[in-house]
Amino acid sequence: MTILPDSDLPFDVNMLDRLAEVSIRVGLNLQEGQDLIITGPIEALPLIRRISAVAYKNGAGVVSTILSDDELQLTRYKHASDESLDRAPDWMFKAMGEAYNDNTARLAISAANPLLLADQDPVRVARVGKSMSMAAKPAMEPITNFATNWNIVSYPGLAWARQVFPDKSDNDAVAALADAIFSISRVDRDDPIEAWKEHQNKLTERQNWMNEQNFHSLHYKAPGTDLVLGLADGHSWKGGASTSRNGITCTPNIPTEEVFTTPHADRVNGVVRATKPLVHRGTVIDGIEVRFVDGKIVEAKADIGEEVFLQLIDTDEGARKLGEVALVPHSSPISSSGLLFYNTLYDENASCHIALGQCYSKCFKEEIGQSPDAVKAAGGNSSNIHVDWMIGSGDLDIDGITKDGDRVPVMRKGEWT
Amino acid sequence: MTILPDSDLPFDVNMLDRLAEVSIRVGLNLQEGQDLIITGPIEALPLIRRISAVAYKNGAGVVSTILSDDELQLTRYKHASDESLDRAPDWMFKAMGEAYNDNTARLAISAANPLLLADQDPVRVARVGKSMSMAAKPAMEPITNFATNWNIVSYPGLAWARQVFPDKSDNDAVAALADAIFSISRVDRDDPIEAWKEHQNKLTERQNWMNEQNFHSLHYKAPGTDLVLGLADGHSWKGGASTSRNGITCTPNIPTEEVFTTPHADRVNGVVRATKPLVHRGTVIDGIEVRFVDGKIVEAKADIGEEVFLQLIDTDEGARKLGEVALVPHSSPISSSGLLFYNTLYDENASCHIALGQCYSKCFKEEIGQSPDAVKAAGGNSSNIHVDWMIGSGDLDIDGITKDGDRVPVMRKGEWT
Repeated sequence: MTILPDSDLPFDVNMLDRLAEVSIRVGLNLQEGQDLIITGPIEALPLIRRISAVAYKNGAGVVSTILSDDELQLTRYKHASDESLDRAPDWMFKAMGEAYNDNTARLAISAANPLLLADQDPVRVARVGKSMSMAAKPAMEPITNFATNWNIVSYPGLAWARQVFPDKSDNDAVAALADAIFSISRVDRDDPIEAWKEHQNKLTERQNWMNEQNFHSLHYKAPGTDLVLGLADGHSWKGGASTSRNGITCTPNIPTEEVFTTPHADRVNGVVRATKPLVHRGTVIDGIEVRFVDGKIVEAKADIGEEVFLQLIDTDEGARKLGEVALVPHSSPISSSGLLFYNTLYDENASCHIALGQCYSKCFKEEIGQSPDAVKAAGGNSSNIHVDWMIGSGDLDIDGITKDGDRVPVMRKGEWT
Repeated sequence: MTILPDSDLPFDVNMLDRLAEVSIRVGLNLQEGQDLIITGPIEALPLIRRISAVAYKNGAGVVSTILSDDELQLTRYKHASDESLDRAPDWMFKAMGEAYNDNTARLAISAANPLLLADQDPVRVARVGKSMSMAAKPAMEPITNFATNWNIVSYPGLAWARQVFPDKSDNDAVAALADAIFSISRVDRDDPIEAWKEHQNKLTERQNWMNEQNFHSLHYKAPGTDLVLGLADGHSWKGGASTSRNGITCTPNIPTEEVFTTPHADRVNGVVRATKPLVHRGTVIDGIEVRFVDGKIVEAKADIGEEVFLQLIDTDEGARKLGEVALVPHSSPISSSGLLFYNTLYDENASCHIALGQCYSKCFKEEIGQSPDAVKAAGGNSSNIHVDWMIGSGDLDIDGITKDGDRVPVMRKGEWT
């Protein structure tokens, strides 16, 4: 891994300055005096350094950065004893969770090599995945529960770029991925902050319409898919910006094209086929087909990476149930790019998707509240995992079904009606 | 900052493999199943990755690495509000401290740019230094108290190499620093592990002699120095290997040439002049001269960096008192190299030195114990800082003074008698 000086990066580094501004001001909406934890790979340091500078210029308290290194991560998979795989740095996740619950904002830089773990033993990969998921729960819960403002943005890493553009030279691949990231993240517009305001207005409109409809369930029909997905009692659709429990309105995902809510953990029935590969912990899982009965996956297969997928849904009780449902038009900028990013943040925003595992307690009406008991009673799922996978396409029709059984077209051929 | 691939490093990378072995097997004596926290700069990744691999091959539990980046660190000094400077990531230090107290081993990679902060406002540097020292206490105490096995080793970083070899090209400077580190750390010997055993035997001999003498105080005489340094009641001299409270015998400093113990915080009188520059938080402090009365610095000056030094000794009550005294022969390999390393780990092992601030509670006889109350009653100092500075030279004579006032020559012209 080489960290290039800014002058050798094969793209316009001014775009990194803009992305840093969007991340701090729109993504996090970081407040004066607020502390911040950044996590990201060393390769993303050209962006991370800029984000840290922008954060301080905007009056941040203290910015702490947890840097990762792919090669260092691989030493464990390659050399650790089996017993080691069941251990995790609990102390770190616990401490991060405490910081998030104490008003520290959280920023994740996504630039991962999608195939980092592709050559590693899937049983060892799953074993680490399970112990890490369980240990990470204290750091993940304040994020899924929106205890604090958080944001995730991307950096055009080389290994990722190679995967998205396998036929290009290294420099051309990074440049192409950079262009895609900057465009999809709206930082190539004249005024990126203003562009995000306009985009937010559109998402708010869709979210409001879905909330007015107050559907009991959604019926998905597409080749290989015939799924009736019940929505949680008192669910609330969200899109783009979200007000965290510390009172700060943030835009967690940069980019984001979705409106999303919490399904009912026990009211999902039928079959569904994934429309794009899912990259989970460095392994590609493609061709997923599952059958739900009363909320739970009872049959599952995948053309590629089946073993990792089966291990994943065996993580815990809630790993076989849904925690999120999201609607994205097939004509979204990411889908229009025609690229497969092998990165959930991008691919999920190209397409309607669902997520296995932990639900967002934020996606409930005020009268339900966000307490674990209330969320559970309303049908919210609980798990140590939260894994999105894509089920949208130009062939997807979705009907909303009201409490009285009336049907309202929501999407036709992948587009909002 | 460029992280070069192994093939482009201007030194023999096999030496890094040997240094990793020495660090894990001699330095830490890492136990099967034991967790490990590594801290170090990204530039040292070629060593850190090897250490992680060696740790796992030796049966480590989980190895966590906290990577730092100089440029990222500078964003704070350059852009943060004044209020920010008084904040610190307490959550991180607290969590690390808990891990160390829970049998996690600790490894620090030293490769810092000695002049990183040289261009920053000394008042801001001191303000960060103070808030960081206070926040770091929970992570520092288990180390100074030897709650767990720990180790510090070095990596030949470019900025550091430039400082030590200002007249060489970048590559030649790194190569020369690498040679010095590998030689002084004894990894260029046929069998480095065996070489460390032999060296340990020599340190043990000196330590045993000093313990048999059981001096009440030491009298230092050299140009500009006339200091009577009282030793703590029930003090015990240590050197090289040390058995931590988790029962593991480690060799904390690689390299190490010293035998050291705890002075009495209230029984130090006279004047002392530093013989080498001290690098503290990125600033060089040179020409220190201080006067002690009853343990406390009452007059202090420095030719260079005086402001930073005065701020340092004002950190807290204990910052004006001594916490460590160490004896190193003037002919030690580091001193013989004739180099000034601008790095305390090296320069302190070239020379007799003393440290301001926190004492090592480990340096007491068993009948005293290591409880804070017992250590304090015996004369052990307490502070948020622990800063070594060099007072040894070829002109230094030291007499031991027994309880009855008898004098025994300990060192003449900087050498053991």
